[in-house]
Amino acid sequence: MKRIERMIALTEILISHPNELLTLGFFADRFDTARSTISEDLVAIKESLTLTDKGNLDTISGAAGGVKYLPGIGREEAKDFLTSLAGNLNAGDRTLPGGFLYMSDILYNPIIARKLGLIFASVFRKRSPEAVITIETKGIPLALMTADALGVPAVVVQHGNKVTEGSSVSINYISGSSKRIQTMSLTRKALGTGKKVLIIDDFIKAGGTAKGLIDLMQEFDAKVVGLGILMEDTLWNNSRLVEDYLALLQLEIDSSKGRTFVKANDPKMM
Amino acid sequence: MKRIERMIALTEILISHPNELLTLGFFADRFDTARSTISEDLVAIKESLTLTDKGNLDTISGAAGGVKYLPGIGREEAKDFLTSLAGNLNAGDRTLPGGFLYMSDILYNPIIARKLGLIFASVFRKRSPEAVITIETKGIPLALMTADALGVPAVVVQHGNKVTEGSSVSINYISGSSKRIQTMSLTRKALGTGKKVLIIDDFIKAGGTAKGLIDLMQEFDAKVVGLGILMEDTLWNNSRLVEDYLALLQLEIDSSKGRTFVKANDPKMM
Repeated sequence: MKRIERMIALTEILISHPNELLTLGFFADRFDTARSTISEDLVAIKESLTLTDKGNLDTISGAAGGVKYLPGIGREEAKDFLTSLAGNLNAGDRTLPGGFLYMSDILYNPIIARKLGLIFASVFRKRSPEAVITIETKGIPLALMTADALGVPAVVVQHGNKVTEGSSVSINYISGSSKRIQTMSLTRKALGTGKKVLIIDDFIKAGGTAKGLIDLMQEFDAKVVGLGILMEDTLWNNSRLVEDYLALLQLEIDSSKGRTFVKANDPKMM
Repeated sequence: MKRIERMIALTEILISHPNELLTLGFFADRFDTARSTISEDLVAIKESLTLTDKGNLDTISGAAGGVKYLPGIGREEAKDFLTSLAGNLNAGDRTLPGGFLYMSDILYNPIIARKLGLIFASVFRKRSPEAVITIETKGIPLALMTADALGVPAVVVQHGNKVTEGSSVSINYISGSSKRIQTMSLTRKALGTGKKVLIIDDFIKAGGTAKGLIDLMQEFDAKVVGLGILMEDTLWNNSRLVEDYLALLQLEIDSSKGRTFVKANDPKMM
């Protein structure tokens, strides 16, 4: 195998196994070449990734060492993507009765969800979350793609308390916008205790659900290291129950005209 | 930029934009080089991908032409992965009261879900599905990752008929295992008419839900080109309501002993 072929195959394997530790030995066996050669190849790949702002190669030295591809997205690309997504959400007939915005097609579009997950992962990676938490249903794609980009499990909290998966923790919470008491539950098996968690959801109004999730995490002795939301409803900006969160988009609803307007926020890549 | 750097960057861009058509012009501009050079680079990448059984590069010629990376997985790698997943599901304490199997952690693990989606995509790609359909909640990660690997949207059917997203279609169906009448709904906006669709779900017992989804698809004049299921419950093998489906794993429940046993099927890569 020529060097160029090996480099292509190496890049391809790394990119398609994000966050997995691959050892020099694995590559040396696979390409029937010396570890030192693989090591040189990886240096070149690392440089190229940095140049194109597409994440990083994390090298772990020692006997159990190897290399991990950490996916990422540059700030400019993220900004451009969010601006174009906002444009997409403003075009066409997306306003639903009651002034709501139809966005399920966006949430369940894997190309869009993957990019949004990459943005959340780029922002929150340095806080080292060990799991990504969301509540069913529409937050699932975002949470899954964020977890994928971070290389950690996603954990889905259920509405109500009809949990059929053994011992579980349920809490009541008050939806901040409708003021109704609701219940959310998580099976004990789904999350160990004392983990660092990142909460991801698709939408925030008054923040009752987000606050409920934060309270539920306390029952697991988890530390919430971040709260990432796709879209914030600006109507609730002065009376929200949670303050420290990152929203990628903001929604303004002009209920007198039944119209909605979406604007991109600038996610500070930290 | 040296050839080797360009090749790495090209590979990285292709792999991280699966199913997106990228034009020669885009690459030529980006790397400040001739289209003919990019063309030669792409031939080398295509060969390397075929060698490593990691999918394919689809070249579209003409004015609107370019290149698309179609992710895939080889049959041997898929078999090994499913065998190891079955082993994982047989290890530890996964049997829930009633002889059910706890597998939410598997379904919401993005690395596992991504691989399973890749297997479904490799099996069903040649039938050209235009959307991947599932029903909330646990099928969502599998459907999303399958849709991602195929480059098509995922569409999530809701339980009940509390659809808040405008005009929707609801149907009643009978759960084959519990014999209860249930309702599922899909908003009109979520799927056009006359599409080829692939149905993906996490579990099949008697197949009532699958049959309901097939019936619902008729209301959208959709053609169901495939039905992919992660796990089939062998108890219902002789009385299932649907026949033509692919299950990746099978579950045997020994209810007298309250024990479960999972076995990998051999997915025929077609």
